[in-house]
Amino acid sequence: MNIDFSTANRIIFGAGELLTLRKIIDGKYGKRVLIIKGRKYPNPGTLFSICEDAKVKWTYFNVEQEPDIETINQAVRLGREKECEFVIGFGGGSVIDTGKAAAALLNNQGSLLDYLEVVGKGKPLKNPSKPYIAIPTTAGTGSEVTRNAVILVPDKKAKVSMRNAYLLPEVAIVDPELTYGIPRTITGVTGMDAFTQVIEPYVSRYSNSLVDIFCEDAIKKSASYLLRGWKDGSDYEARDNISWVSLMGGLALANAKLGAAHGLAGPIGGMFSAPHGAICAALLPSVMLVNAEALSIRGSHLEKLSRFKDIARWVTGKENANINEGIEWIASLCENMRIPRLSELGIKKEHFPTIIQKSKKSSSMRGNPIQLTGQEIEKILELSF
Amino acid sequence: MNIDFSTANRIIFGAGELLTLRKIIDGKYGKRVLIIKGRKYPNPGTLFSICEDAKVKWTYFNVEQEPDIETINQAVRLGREKECEFVIGFGGGSVIDTGKAAAALLNNQGSLLDYLEVVGKGKPLKNPSKPYIAIPTTAGTGSEVTRNAVILVPDKKAKVSMRNAYLLPEVAIVDPELTYGIPRTITGVTGMDAFTQVIEPYVSRYSNSLVDIFCEDAIKKSASYLLRGWKDGSDYEARDNISWVSLMGGLALANAKLGAAHGLAGPIGGMFSAPHGAICAALLPSVMLVNAEALSIRGSHLEKLSRFKDIARWVTGKENANINEGIEWIASLCENMRIPRLSELGIKKEHFPTIIQKSKKSSSMRGNPIQLTGQEIEKILELSF
Repeated sequence: MNIDFSTANRIIFGAGELLTLRKIIDGKYGKRVLIIKGRKYPNPGTLFSICEDAKVKWTYFNVEQEPDIETINQAVRLGREKECEFVIGFGGGSVIDTGKAAAALLNNQGSLLDYLEVVGKGKPLKNPSKPYIAIPTTAGTGSEVTRNAVILVPDKKAKVSMRNAYLLPEVAIVDPELTYGIPRTITGVTGMDAFTQVIEPYVSRYSNSLVDIFCEDAIKKSASYLLRGWKDGSDYEARDNISWVSLMGGLALANAKLGAAHGLAGPIGGMFSAPHGAICAALLPSVMLVNAEALSIRGSHLEKLSRFKDIARWVTGKENANINEGIEWIASLCENMRIPRLSELGIKKEHFPTIIQKSKKSSSMRGNPIQLTGQEIEKILELSF
Repeated sequence: MNIDFSTANRIIFGAGELLTLRKIIDGKYGKRVLIIKGRKYPNPGTLFSICEDAKVKWTYFNVEQEPDIETINQAVRLGREKECEFVIGFGGGSVIDTGKAAAALLNNQGSLLDYLEVVGKGKPLKNPSKPYIAIPTTAGTGSEVTRNAVILVPDKKAKVSMRNAYLLPEVAIVDPELTYGIPRTITGVTGMDAFTQVIEPYVSRYSNSLVDIFCEDAIKKSASYLLRGWKDGSDYEARDNISWVSLMGGLALANAKLGAAHGLAGPIGGMFSAPHGAICAALLPSVMLVNAEALSIRGSHLEKLSRFKDIARWVTGKENANINEGIEWIASLCENMRIPRLSELGIKKEHFPTIIQKSKKSSSMRGNPIQLTGQEIEKILELSF
């Protein structure tokens, strides 16, 4: 068991914990902050009050959708113009990722393309980021505790990941209260995104003992609370636990790789405007099914197969549940929460070959418990369609 | 469930991982390092080679025993004289703690007493520490992932804790191979120290969901591997798992408080020269017994009591084990590993009143699941004598 674990320097979790921000920003990081936030929800009133209270002057930047290069460069220009000394991200995964990239660029010269691999110059970041406080308002991506930012490159119809230890936030404040008003459809897909992020690392080729314990806890909690939170948005116990799953997902994915669901969601997200969480959710049951089949047909993967059995036990609560019962349980959960299928997300069958080809090169696909053939990947897409 | 979690920026765990140090120090932290190490064991040859290889010039400082103020000031003087840019601690808990304090003072003016509470001026640290890489060679204290350093104040016959987020190491490298040569007596007491550090936070008044999952995993592993590693020092699977328990203990105690075993071990360690781990080990079974009694007699502490039952299940492996069976199991483990009793550690009954009085003021005692009376604390000491 060899492990290399990093995360945000400080993680604060709990209903109402947004208020701890007051003490955190009190004189420590400077007098001018760049706030990155979503346009509509949630109301940033409390956030602004906290800054005023702490005598920190704020400038805000709205993120409308999944960030592309121009979005981030705009945020950085604003932050440089206002001489912001630190950054707060307050929103969903897109906002948190924009904040990460902006905080990095505020303390490094040049523009985003200088630092992106494949599509840009791929220069290493010279200096640590400006201090970055990530406050997710969905549950979610877990991005508040990871070291990468996903960025859309529209003219390449692709998403690229900016990955660097400097991108780890200084502080993550996960306050489930901020998710209490989220509508049902968002709760479903973001919750399934989080669920996927604790399942894929657990069966990943790069799983490790530390990630295992995060995943076990979070898979059990997902099974207990996802549907409850979806059915009744005012079930705060459920909401709190879904936020917890999201946080565990971030800790897990940052320290083990993911798998085919994310390996496919990357390229699909670059080609279609469907939300990342919805794509992962649509794919998860079929990915598990095809993986379990491949593992039992090919090679000696007993240890990995036994992990699918663990998941079956944890989600069904039955000590002797078999792998298929587990997968069926998860498929029913998706149906119950009315998770849309790939076809409902605008994906067309004619794009399958391109998706398959692109997915094979993705970093997440390398974490999949077994290398899948093109046919197997196609089967995943067919079953999720 | 409200949580405030911090740890080392990067945690590397695994047999042979000491070698990753080469890449870590490659140009990142500077050209001159202060190495804090124990006098005898383990041979720092590999460490020196790695530094030479990375063209980092090293100066070393030997720690002979639990550090006092003068030890740390000496280390700091050496580091300042040689203009060291970062610090590596390579040894047991005393070494790791000396390194923490030295790294902090190398980047802050003045001497240690300026920054110690109670016995000194209690000034806050103005600057972050110099980068500090902690490499424990015992399993152990878990100090590589905590934010405090325990310092002896001989003329007050007391130990004080220097506590600051800046004391969290930049990198912790936990390489179980470094513990493979440790003699049996050390394996027993340091292992029991680690075991205590996953039991006390689990039943602590400040337990939380994140600490819970570290503790559950580590309590189960302690039960499986402590005696095995003690019986056969070349059982590397056991050694690896004991190192793991030690790391989990650090993560747990840094993020929930401890309890009466540590509340008593602090003052006893200040008054007598017995090793900290041995004192904790001698106290643990009686602390659990008296706590469980107090919880069942007084007030409404069903949730805490159920945690003692969890521990009983995990250590005995029996689904319906009761609390006493768990405590007896741990007491037998201590007997089997020939853990000395308090009387064998040089503690005298006439000192009980002073110990009890001092323990009541300790920070760890505040984490105990229930406030103990003087009589109850005395009973702990009597039963451990």
